[in-house]
Amino acid sequence: MKATVHVTLKNGVLDPQGKAVRNALGALGFDGVKGVRQGKFIELDLVETDPATARENLDAMCRQLLANTVIENYSIEILE
Amino acid sequence: MKATVHVTLKNGVLDPQGKAVRNALGALGFDGVKGVRQGKFIELDLVETDPATARENLDAMCRQLLANTVIENYSIEILE
Repeated sequence: MKATVHVTLKNGVLDPQGKAVRNALGALGFDGVKGVRQGKFIELDLVETDPATARENLDAMCRQLLANTVIENYSIEILE
Repeated sequence: MKATVHVTLKNGVLDPQGKAVRNALGALGFDGVKGVRQGKFIELDLVETDPATARENLDAMCRQLLANTVIENYSIEILE
């Protein structure tokens, strides 16, 4: 079973990486960029075949390792 | 106009970061993970209001800065 996880910074948390990307885009002549936020995109291939159990496991993985829940949000999507 | 870009490693390109995540998940007791690939997720806020032009601009941004097209694929999504 395949699943994806998006990890993004919470609103209000500074994103220096996104700011650097925005400045670099400006330097390349892309002026119409008001803001950039950069997050992580994680694709997982799981042995589990039950979607509900997979989601539970992924939730635990996110809380324990993939996301820093103090400053980051995560969203889980089960693909197949 | 908001847009998102996913940047992922092409198939066949080694992903040491994903491998490290997989090993760390294994060490935490999550045994049912066959594979992990880690990519980037970028949220952009654009001045442009025409979806077609925005997509063209984003395509240029991806080719010039956001993705290394030798080893990475990218996909663009226009949100609103």
